[in-house]
Amino acid sequence: MSGFAHRHLLGIEPLLASEIEHILDTAEGLREVLDRPIKKVPTLRGKTVVNLFYEASTRTRASFEMAERVLSADSLSIATATSSVQKGETLLDTAKNLEAMNPDMIVVRHGSSGAALFLSRHCRAAIVNAGDGAHEHPTQALLDALTLRQKKGRIKGLRIAIVGDILHSRVARSNLWLLTKLGAQVVLCAPPTLVPPGIESLAPVTWRIEEAIEGADAIMMLRIQQERMSGGFFPTTREFHQRYGLTLERVRRAKKDVVILHPGPMNRGVEIASEVADGPYSVILDQVTNGVAVRMAVLYLLLGGEATA
Amino acid sequence: MSGFAHRHLLGIEPLLASEIEHILDTAEGLREVLDRPIKKVPTLRGKTVVNLFYEASTRTRASFEMAERVLSADSLSIATATSSVQKGETLLDTAKNLEAMNPDMIVVRHGSSGAALFLSRHCRAAIVNAGDGAHEHPTQALLDALTLRQKKGRIKGLRIAIVGDILHSRVARSNLWLLTKLGAQVVLCAPPTLVPPGIESLAPVTWRIEEAIEGADAIMMLRIQQERMSGGFFPTTREFHQRYGLTLERVRRAKKDVVILHPGPMNRGVEIASEVADGPYSVILDQVTNGVAVRMAVLYLLLGGEATA
Amino acid sequence: MSGFAHRHLLGIEPLLASEIEHILDTAEGLREVLDRPIKKVPTLRGKTVVNLFYEASTRTRASFEMAERVLSADSLSIATATSSVQKGETLLDTAKNLEAMNPDMIVVRHGSSGAALFLSRHCRAAIVNAGDGAHEHPTQALLDALTLRQKKGRIKGLRIAIVGDILHSRVARSNLWLLTKLGAQVVLCAPPTLVPPGIESLAPVTWRIEEAIEGADAIMMLRIQQERMSGGFFPTTREFHQRYGLTLERVRRAKKDVVILHPGPMNRGVEIASEVADGPYSVILDQVTNGVAVRMAVLYLLLGGEATA
Repeated sequence: MSGFAHRHLLGIEPLLASEIEHILDTAEGLREVLDRPIKKVPTLRGKTVVNLFYEASTRTRASFEMAERVLSADSLSIATATSSVQKGETLLDTAKNLEAMNPDMIVVRHGSSGAALFLSRHCRAAIVNAGDGAHEHPTQALLDALTLRQKKGRIKGLRIAIVGDILHSRVARSNLWLLTKLGAQVVLCAPPTLVPPGIESLAPVTWRIEEAIEGADAIMMLRIQQERMSGGFFPTTREFHQRYGLTLERVRRAKKDVVILHPGPMNRGVEIASEVADGPYSVILDQVTNGVAVRMAVLYLLLGGEATA
Repeated sequence: MSGFAHRHLLGIEPLLASEIEHILDTAEGLREVLDRPIKKVPTLRGKTVVNLFYEASTRTRASFEMAERVLSADSLSIATATSSVQKGETLLDTAKNLEAMNPDMIVVRHGSSGAALFLSRHCRAAIVNAGDGAHEHPTQALLDALTLRQKKGRIKGLRIAIVGDILHSRVARSNLWLLTKLGAQVVLCAPPTLVPPGIESLAPVTWRIEEAIEGADAIMMLRIQQERMSGGFFPTTREFHQRYGLTLERVRRAKKDVVILHPGPMNRGVEIASEVADGPYSVILDQVTNGVAVRMAVLYLLLGGEATA
Repeated sequence: MSGFAHRHLLGIEPLLASEIEHILDTAEGLREVLDRPIKKVPTLRGKTVVNLFYEASTRTRASFEMAERVLSADSLSIATATSSVQKGETLLDTAKNLEAMNPDMIVVRHGSSGAALFLSRHCRAAIVNAGDGAHEHPTQALLDALTLRQKKGRIKGLRIAIVGDILHSRVARSNLWLLTKLGAQVVLCAPPTLVPPGIESLAPVTWRIEEAIEGADAIMMLRIQQERMSGGFFPTTREFHQRYGLTLERVRRAKKDVVILHPGPMNRGVEIASEVADGPYSVILDQVTNGVAVRMAVLYLLLGGEATA
């Protein structure tokens, strides 16, 4: 069986567990290309991808670009600072204009929730959501899941704590969907000001990090965005670290073989202590490597999946 | 016959009607590559193009880059914000330095009229003008013409209105040259403050949009640049829309099968109403697709035309 | 003999004279590819290079990108303005994250001396220093040397003046190492405020440009950085030009067949007069062409050198 039933990757929420697993299996298969001395296969030769980034990004954009090059796709990258986005054009006009150039895929990052869905309704190209507001960041959740599967052998039944600024985090949202669909037991942990209303219907919430970590198989730390710090959501970064930072001492409450994830870029000394970030439980760099593999899988399934089987 | 008699594409003004038609025919021939599942031909393999953009641009730069990738040329893109242009180097020094790296072509966009001509006098590389001040934007006029030919079957004898900020528009200037060379009957329409002196020797000018549109086969709307709006050229964008905006009601004065063009990015509700931009007469997205084909033709004729025939 | 004994290119200081000559010989051999109609060889196909630029750059970045394309390497370019560097991530975290994507090489430019060395200690990828603070800029010195060898047939025994802002110049430092290792006789010339303490142990220093130029085979002018001008290092650019600018009159004190180098971008009328920059002794554009060849050699020796021989 080859196919992938979706034309777009807009989020994790619309996917079946079996579809998520299909993406992860595909990523697993493609991952070894990255270890070859010649990291290049002709799979997507002549396919064109536009990377349309309305928010600054190093790693996500670089990761998509790397995946595109490895698969021999052609790509264009457009960042707001150097584009006519400045000239006040609407997102839809920009996207339709790019689409009129006949790309096969548009990878979009945008500050507004729903931006990717919106484009998918008006464009013929395959749309991949590379992060839309506080809504979803599906490839991040997929790479996290691939990392968990590699390190733990499974996702079903794992106890996983997601800790930090849940309110503003598309990473938390995509992971919450993915992990619950695949049968993990998720606990959310945030200061009261950073818990989105109603989220407790999806997973239990605690304000105490010690409680969230207790017995965890995996801890996913979220990035504190500097721009939130002046928003009155918490007093100071120092206080945030004291109450919610992942320290070595706190890690000891988790299972002995706990793994620690972070989507990056890290604020060392704020949401995560350096000794934890660089310690033996950290799988943060595995996440990055898996990010390229997952994006290769998404490109392959949406653009080239039917060619092979 | 293969050849193209020019080493550069600096503007439409220096071209013969037969040369313009040769570019359009070439673009027509290359256009089908864009509809293939594998959008890639090896025509310009090993040729190198530098895209040197001193002004922000999404669509023109993306369109050139797309054309370069489809034809397998290598390319470098340099935008002012990330370049030593900031360090105060002259345009000529930047261009000569880039040229010393042996590119085959430099595509240049610059805020000063004559920038492309100036480079062509001092560089060995083929120079393509991607817009120089208020002077010319030849590939825009070529893609407009390709669109008109496709939709109308010809250009000769068409009645075409060009409406908006004629004074600052390189698009208007290039189109005026092209359309009159190919035998169309052009009417210009702008507020009195936005009519360049002496232009009436090239085409009739009216201040009334209704008069310009009357019986038109095609209407070319120009972009109002936000930066002009504070320049005292017209009172408010709302007033501009009332007097010169292309509304559905005004379109009805044109021929039944009129086509409406806009170079983008559009200011919806200013120079063009959304219902017109998205309506059945609009060929705005065809223009974008043809933009890639026209740029492929220019690359091909200037860099690879002699190889084939 | 094929090999190159280093995994990184961090500076000229750690290289033996024979290693420098090996790079120059390799560049000489690769240079002819740039004159071919098809400027592309498959040597580094499937190798990936990340260009990580923390400082604005046109020519160095373009030169590396050109070298990468000619050798068929894949590359990603990351400039600070559009990256999560903005988000406050450390250099090491950024580099380790990029490295986790499995590139074969990271080319880095950074404002801090020692940045490249630091990365080489923590990354597995080959690190190439594209300029680190006021420390070294090794590929610039190599391209200068390649240019001197071409024009003079040798470097040993040449009398070479390096003139300008020695204090802040990584170009001066790399050239000083290279030229003395290869047996040239270097004279340094700068205003007293721009002489680094202790430098006279490496080469004689004079405050008088006339004395430095007297009988020189080559003059290397350094760029005055605009940002220094308000730093109190010298009164005005006009006064700097009067005392230290390279004028035609001053050039006459040098040997008849003197060659004049400048790393660019030039401040015409400040450190160099236009008539000198564009005059017959100037080899400034040869430097640029050689820059691509030297970077091809570095890529080849660090990434592909063992494959051939």
